[in-house]
Amino acid sequence: MTIKAVVFDAYGTLYDIQSVAEITEDAFPGYGEIITQIWRIKQLEYSWLRSLMRRYQAFSVVTREALAYTLRSLGLQHDEATFARIIDKYLHLDLYPDALSMLEALKDRKLAILSNGSPDMLNALVRNSGLERVLDATISVDKKKVFKPDPAAYALIEEVLHVPPAEVLFISSNPWDACAAKAFGLNVAWIERVTPEAMALACVESDTVAPLTMFKALRTQMDELGVVPDHRIHALSELPALVSAQRS
Amino acid sequence: MTIKAVVFDAYGTLYDIQSVAEITEDAFPGYGEIITQIWRIKQLEYSWLRSLMRRYQAFSVVTREALAYTLRSLGLQHDEATFARIIDKYLHLDLYPDALSMLEALKDRKLAILSNGSPDMLNALVRNSGLERVLDATISVDKKKVFKPDPAAYALIEEVLHVPPAEVLFISSNPWDACAAKAFGLNVAWIERVTPEAMALACVESDTVAPLTMFKALRTQMDELGVVPDHRIHALSELPALVSAQRS
Repeated sequence: MTIKAVVFDAYGTLYDIQSVAEITEDAFPGYGEIITQIWRIKQLEYSWLRSLMRRYQAFSVVTREALAYTLRSLGLQHDEATFARIIDKYLHLDLYPDALSMLEALKDRKLAILSNGSPDMLNALVRNSGLERVLDATISVDKKKVFKPDPAAYALIEEVLHVPPAEVLFISSNPWDACAAKAFGLNVAWIERVTPEAMALACVESDTVAPLTMFKALRTQMDELGVVPDHRIHALSELPALVSAQRS
Repeated sequence: MTIKAVVFDAYGTLYDIQSVAEITEDAFPGYGEIITQIWRIKQLEYSWLRSLMRRYQAFSVVTREALAYTLRSLGLQHDEATFARIIDKYLHLDLYPDALSMLEALKDRKLAILSNGSPDMLNALVRNSGLERVLDATISVDKKKVFKPDPAAYALIEEVLHVPPAEVLFISSNPWDACAAKAFGLNVAWIERVTPEAMALACVESDTVAPLTMFKALRTQMDELGVVPDHRIHALSELPALVSAQRS
């Protein structure tokens, strides 16, 4: 089977969401890291809950609501300007360092993003990070008014790129996203960014890095959802070789 | 509006899921609390993810998968007997101390549980805790093969009890559950078990109680889902007066 399209999750996969921590730490000294962890967890929770409740709102709304929850639950007072400055960072996330060269190495395939992000968020992010010229499409689930892992979200790949699931390689660092994409019928590579060994080490050190440890324990290891991705890689830079090897 | 039926969430609302910590601490000294926190978060995550993925499995399966994830992510080796002993505690959870007297005070209304739990789990739990004789029904979402907060789950109340949503008071300590029940059209009382003041205090103390703090910051405060429950109470014992006050 030849891979005709390579499709990427955005947040946590091509873009480093931890790069928000600099802003949150600056705004709330001592709370920078726990804010980013809780914010991310609630952002995903709200996307799933709203999908199930049939009360979809754009990811930009969910992201703001999750940040509002986070600051309130931590008892952190803030003004509108601070809130806006943190939110704005979501439009200027750092690319993982190997993202651009990897995409350039794969330019003979169709390349796209499939993300929960709303079109305004994704278009700004792609433009600000210079990925506009290497991507064939930036696909937002917003068209379906439901978030991943609803199958309707993954169906957008074929609808937009006209490549059937069996000829698509989907990449995500989010275990649940990788599992759901596989369950849908896509070929899937999961980026394991925190190895079990690193996780075990974080536990030993948990007196000092507790919120990050809790987050890692919650969200970085392969999930138990009755399905496993096809490939496990550790960096985006491994992808060109992986895609070539799929050529039959 | 007269309240004709009072319907309760089970886990965390009538039953104290933290009562598992004694067993997990005994099995894995030093990890008792973080296991219960991660386990609970993953249990709910998996119920939402499987609902969205259209890959429903009974809550007993999801609960085991979430525990397997938790122990693996923390690098904790275990044998089958230990795993089984922890799981078994879910059938023998402690009732909150004021649960039974509250239910007895409300016996002139229809009383029921509506829970994500599978029928085998719920029936054992209700029997083991002596609630059989005070409840009119123990309703599992299993009949719909989808978990809360899908509206189909809340629709079961009317289907089983024959009381319309406007005459039902639904009680949950889980903020997302309270919001979704309200969005569905039920009257809802949310039990705020951790006040903002207690949450703020936990943050100050977070060097020593970090996993619990993280959990509290994630799951105990009212959510931002665009809808709010009708009532906010702090203990089950407040319910008889609240129900009487609804009489028009």
